[in-house]
Amino acid sequence: MRQAGRYLQEYNETRRRAGDFITLAKTPAFATEVTLQPVERFALDAAILFSDILTIPDAMGLGLRFAENEGPKFERPVRTEADVKALSAPDPQLELGYVLDAVRSIRGALQGRVPLIGFSGSPWTLACYMVEGGGSDDFRLVKTMLYARPDLMHQLLSVNARAVTDYLNAQIRAGAQAVMLFDTWGGVLTGPAFREFSMAYMAQVVRGLDREHDGEPVPSVVFTKGGGAWLEAIADSGCDAVGLDWTQHLGLARARIGERCALQGNLDPAILLAPEAVIRSEARRVLDEFGPALNAGGTCGGHVFNLGHGISRFTPPEAVATLIDAVHGESRRLRR
Amino acid sequence: MRQAGRYLQEYNETRRRAGDFITLAKTPAFATEVTLQPVERFALDAAILFSDILTIPDAMGLGLRFAENEGPKFERPVRTEADVKALSAPDPQLELGYVLDAVRSIRGALQGRVPLIGFSGSPWTLACYMVEGGGSDDFRLVKTMLYARPDLMHQLLSVNARAVTDYLNAQIRAGAQAVMLFDTWGGVLTGPAFREFSMAYMAQVVRGLDREHDGEPVPSVVFTKGGGAWLEAIADSGCDAVGLDWTQHLGLARARIGERCALQGNLDPAILLAPEAVIRSEARRVLDEFGPALNAGGTCGGHVFNLGHGISRFTPPEAVATLIDAVHGESRRLRR
Repeated sequence: MRQAGRYLQEYNETRRRAGDFITLAKTPAFATEVTLQPVERFALDAAILFSDILTIPDAMGLGLRFAENEGPKFERPVRTEADVKALSAPDPQLELGYVLDAVRSIRGALQGRVPLIGFSGSPWTLACYMVEGGGSDDFRLVKTMLYARPDLMHQLLSVNARAVTDYLNAQIRAGAQAVMLFDTWGGVLTGPAFREFSMAYMAQVVRGLDREHDGEPVPSVVFTKGGGAWLEAIADSGCDAVGLDWTQHLGLARARIGERCALQGNLDPAILLAPEAVIRSEARRVLDEFGPALNAGGTCGGHVFNLGHGISRFTPPEAVATLIDAVHGESRRLRR
Repeated sequence: MRQAGRYLQEYNETRRRAGDFITLAKTPAFATEVTLQPVERFALDAAILFSDILTIPDAMGLGLRFAENEGPKFERPVRTEADVKALSAPDPQLELGYVLDAVRSIRGALQGRVPLIGFSGSPWTLACYMVEGGGSDDFRLVKTMLYARPDLMHQLLSVNARAVTDYLNAQIRAGAQAVMLFDTWGGVLTGPAFREFSMAYMAQVVRGLDREHDGEPVPSVVFTKGGGAWLEAIADSGCDAVGLDWTQHLGLARARIGERCALQGNLDPAILLAPEAVIRSEARRVLDEFGPALNAGGTCGGHVFNLGHGISRFTPPEAVATLIDAVHGESRRLRR
């Protein structure tokens, strides 16, 4: 999950220098600075590319803008058959070069200290923003297109799947050492609609990903927020790890998925607002729920500790330090 | 789920006459009119009390108001130890008499055509609004209280559980023939926190409910939005039916809960924005997922068709008529 952000003083300072969020996200030097900030401050085990989830639709020409204290908005949302037919997958080298430059620059700045994780929104999640024209609390427009014009929705999702695959592969070739697919809005669908309109396209993306780069494996992680009912389907995509939100029990998820995939998650980010003792006990609970790792050798089971969703801007930075310390200490205890 | 609302012309007319939402909700004659409107227009099998979910905290003196195009807000949210200690469960006869008058008036107006369902927010869901002071997308304040001061949260929830029990029993004694507990925000919690801070108090409410009135059984329904991981715990509360949101598969839920409880749900309300053929096929899918009823005789299994959440203001009324027709037709087919 996102590590940089407004809860860090140094992030706010860089953002002030950048002037606005889009400049911050689109300038490789700023993106590098901001990606490195949490790594400099905390004993993190990985860096996460600082970027926006809407880079792809922006590169498609939808006109992304951020109004202060509002979410992202598209000036030209995708609403009609003509809108869908006009879409094409951007060439990441040409139209998303700033992200690839950021990846290369971050890898240089990290100097191998920790690996770098790249990411993209899922085809369905991007479609939600593209059709709604921004955030939504009922997903009325995108669901109306899905149910009234499933043919159109499939065209849109096919373009998105192509775009996401190309984008993640370009990140991998630029130096991302693992990639995550964020299906933030898969959980607003019924089971059959999730399978047809979100899962099928995520599976297509996973199948199209480079599995290694420079002789090193590049793991992929798929995270559907609110997707607890469909973990088996997510694991079947062939991804290396399944991300879990905090409503799921890691032990039960492990029993369902077996050792096919690693599990990633799933502390409630709100726990970072609690006192130190609670952070420590909740981190221990999450690790204990997964239970001890098997001596799995070359298989892909295992647990990657993570938050179950993005970090709150109200998080005290010391809470993050406490959490990381607790996770490292407890992991060592569990492995003994 | 709510049946009356802005998607109905006649509702908007009554609301205009009432002047504002609070007057509409607090005047028994208006509440009766609006409760009956969907029953007059559609072949519904039950009426649902028109009321607000925040009547209890309003009666506790928190100062509910509705700003246009904003959600509900409390003028005096519950944030401190002193705020919590000042709370007490309202006497429904004295402080929520307008709801009980509405129940009696609606029963009179229905003249036995269909039964009347009463409802309340769950103790935890009310606590979310009381602490946040309105809606929230991160539940930061209420979760901070939960994790930092669980003792205080338990005090608050104890008062709420008492208040909800008294309120639902008063609705039953005034004539409500079934009652629903809406746990709209249980699904934002981790599993252990859900059990401790939402489920335990809903179970307390269910245990305290009158099981019959005037010689007739009064069924209770518990609905946790996003609570698919915890259906067994919900069924264990002793409720007669478990409500399901649209992300859950009714057949799998039935396999988990067995025939202990009826299931209620779970069509995605967004499907009412789709063409008629889709509404019909999705209604059939929901009924088929549950499967044929057993000849259960006196047991409480079975399926009550319902939406998986509230109806959208953009729903065309004809879509509701189509849905009801499809459900009635398909149910007869399934029962044959």
